[in-house]
Amino acid sequence: MADQETASEDVPVQAEEILGLSDDVVSSVTEALDDEHRFESRLLVEPLRAPELADLLQLLRPELRGRLVDYLRPDFDPEILTELEDDVRDDVAEQLGTRALARTIARLETDDALELISSLQEDQQRQIFQAIPSALRATLREGLAFPEDSAGRLMQRDFVAVPAFWSVGETIDYLREADNLPNDFYDIFVVDPRHRAVGSVAVSHVLRNKRPVKILDIAEPDLVTVPATMDQEEVAFLFGQQDLVSAPVVDDAGRLIGTITVDDVLDVIHEEAEEDIMRLGGVKTDDLYSAAMETGRSRFSWLFLNLITAILASIVIGFFEGTLEQIVMLAILMPIVASMGRNAGTQTMTVAVRALATRELTGANAMRVLGKEALVGVYNGLLFALLIGLVAWFWSGSWSIGAVMAVAMVITLVIAALAGMMIPLGLSRTGVDPAIASGVILTTITDVVAFSAFLGLAAGFLV
Amino acid sequence: MADQETASEDVPVQAEEILGLSDDVVSSVTEALDDEHRFESRLLVEPLRAPELADLLQLLRPELRGRLVDYLRPDFDPEILTELEDDVRDDVAEQLGTRALARTIARLETDDALELISSLQEDQQRQIFQAIPSALRATLREGLAFPEDSAGRLMQRDFVAVPAFWSVGETIDYLREADNLPNDFYDIFVVDPRHRAVGSVAVSHVLRNKRPVKILDIAEPDLVTVPATMDQEEVAFLFGQQDLVSAPVVDDAGRLIGTITVDDVLDVIHEEAEEDIMRLGGVKTDDLYSAAMETGRSRFSWLFLNLITAILASIVIGFFEGTLEQIVMLAILMPIVASMGRNAGTQTMTVAVRALATRELTGANAMRVLGKEALVGVYNGLLFALLIGLVAWFWSGSWSIGAVMAVAMVITLVIAALAGMMIPLGLSRTGVDPAIASGVILTTITDVVAFSAFLGLAAGFLV
Repeated sequence: MADQETASEDVPVQAEEILGLSDDVVSSVTEALDDEHRFESRLLVEPLRAPELADLLQLLRPELRGRLVDYLRPDFDPEILTELEDDVRDDVAEQLGTRALARTIARLETDDALELISSLQEDQQRQIFQAIPSALRATLREGLAFPEDSAGRLMQRDFVAVPAFWSVGETIDYLREADNLPNDFYDIFVVDPRHRAVGSVAVSHVLRNKRPVKILDIAEPDLVTVPATMDQEEVAFLFGQQDLVSAPVVDDAGRLIGTITVDDVLDVIHEEAEEDIMRLGGVKTDDLYSAAMETGRSRFSWLFLNLITAILASIVIGFFEGTLEQIVMLAILMPIVASMGRNAGTQTMTVAVRALATRELTGANAMRVLGKEALVGVYNGLLFALLIGLVAWFWSGSWSIGAVMAVAMVITLVIAALAGMMIPLGLSRTGVDPAIASGVILTTITDVVAFSAFLGLAAGFLV
Repeated sequence: MADQETASEDVPVQAEEILGLSDDVVSSVTEALDDEHRFESRLLVEPLRAPELADLLQLLRPELRGRLVDYLRPDFDPEILTELEDDVRDDVAEQLGTRALARTIARLETDDALELISSLQEDQQRQIFQAIPSALRATLREGLAFPEDSAGRLMQRDFVAVPAFWSVGETIDYLREADNLPNDFYDIFVVDPRHRAVGSVAVSHVLRNKRPVKILDIAEPDLVTVPATMDQEEVAFLFGQQDLVSAPVVDDAGRLIGTITVDDVLDVIHEEAEEDIMRLGGVKTDDLYSAAMETGRSRFSWLFLNLITAILASIVIGFFEGTLEQIVMLAILMPIVASMGRNAGTQTMTVAVRALATRELTGANAMRVLGKEALVGVYNGLLFALLIGLVAWFWSGSWSIGAVMAVAMVITLVIAALAGMMIPLGLSRTGVDPAIASGVILTTITDVVAFSAFLGLAAGFLV
């Protein structure tokens, strides 16, 4: 056990070892914590890096998590906090207390410190501001002034910028002597006298050129600058589209005020994809780590909305009570039409929501895609009309019930396809996130169409 | 128009200009293509970079896309191909023809060339292999030998490695003089005599140290190595968890054979999130770019599966034909119970599928999370039982129908919660992607439970 630490300094870590925060490790730590063995617990988690420790904390039961934080308190790694999900982080931050948090924040890079402090309650923020050095306080206050989820919140305020008239040699000497540079940096920015970014140079290019070469001559002229107020989702899109590794952040006057690196963007992409998936499923992002009561409450509102729409569909069915009384078989068959409509609509909606998020669906191709979806609806509508018409005919023994079902199926699938495309498009045009509301509206429409088409046709032709 | 090119060399590009591949641009290009104005079309797309051009090609109607590719053929930028979605890329690659493709591939970086060639049909691959230089052919053949979606496919084979005994000065001299180095690199790898990676140094650290310093002394000792056979999904997880910018790829013997950089991982994360969302919605990833018939066919199978499960649910309803005949109100109310079960189950399932994908749900916490979901089911089950019981009572005028509905609601929501968690867990244990199959199995279970609980209770107590 004791030589694991030295071992990790000699040989590279195999990726598999990291991916496997194995169930074994989790269960032996759990056991040690259960038995309140402080020393053994610390020994067991000693070889873990901050990201694995964060994962471990998230996997533990809340009371054991609290105990482990307590055991680790004397030398709690600030990196851990930046890796935790919001709900768990709040718990741990509260347990650590203001004093320890302030120490922690002072040791983080500015972007991580900003993210951490912005996630805290306001009174805790105030206490921490009083406990940190005034220079850091000013920096963080400035950062908090940018809108939430903006480039200004995401950016690192430490960066390397050199005047446009410098040579490679001057730049290298500066880099060797300056003592307030960030730990790692990938690009060096070239600025004009008004501190506006005019170019960037990959560090490897600086290394590979002779000392007398002018820095501006080897700078990438196609510099993409990010305004500090740009939404993080747009920043992520930009990095992905342009294969950027880092980009300069500028203020309204075009002055360089920070940089965003690709690892920050990785987190944003994770978050945004997570958000889309969760919203489509009707849950909050933090769901997994909330207590049962909290989760129940947060899911309640979505289910309640769904209840209203389900009642609406039932009211439609209620209009045909007389028809149902005469032919009970209709009650048995009607959920099939509704279910097919819901699923076909969801297929189209999923494509639309995702394509809107990745900007592959825009005003420029919306009409063309809508036309295609209508075609797909007609195509599958006809196929399933035939299938389900036959099934309904044999099951009910009445060819006319089969015919009614077939026609209802075509109508439902075509309208489901159109609705699945038009609802997300309409929502995004009004500024509502299509992922959050499309599903409920869609199922309301498909249910109402399915029930009224099927039962309405039956009322008209069968009774 | 003509001075746009020179302008872009002088001032940095504002991010907004890129994000806005504006509908204006798309529609003026569309118009020029519609009118077959070759010169005007070329002029209009001249200021666009490869990523925007790729987006534009995807937004255009297939025949206009073909026309634009034709107009651009003399100097078609190979970068464009690497940015296209698979379906569109296949079309464009076919149109360009083998000779032009071979020229294109020879100009790309090895990882992009590999990705491009692996996406082609086998006979096209063979023709291209004959047309490219033999050194490149050998490299690509080696790359294709790695499993699809593995680190070996993802990696860049050009990297910078130096012996462990070198100094910073020797390293810098080598970097200045070597002429076969990659364009950009972020880390320099340190290797032992058997070419095994023993450390890595950020380029900025090399720059900031004096020439006599030993390279091994400033190397990051905690090097994470990626085996060439590791799945790209695991690679992406690793980069996200460890905040890596680049990582060395090693063969079975631990020898350094390539590197993966974070921009490759960005694409993987996009792909994987896309895959999860699309699979949950029952569609293929390429859906947006397929022709209507193809899309229809690919969605048919999923809808067909859904039809079977819907019929299954209807068979369950059929068992209670007699009960429905006596109380038609049951037919009107039963879709509400089923709908609530489906939605509550989907909420839980979404959380489970996502948490499994991000490894936040493992064997270590599965039982705890399952217990929590059961609690949430009971909590919301009781609340909605009360609500829906009252609604059903007032609507039907019978308190006993209300009571039956309330009890059915609790049963359905609790089982929906358990099923929503256990189905993805079970699927992932058997190696099936939970995103692809959970939904169908879940709705089958919730529908069957909802209908049989509601109608069964009604049959037992009401008639």
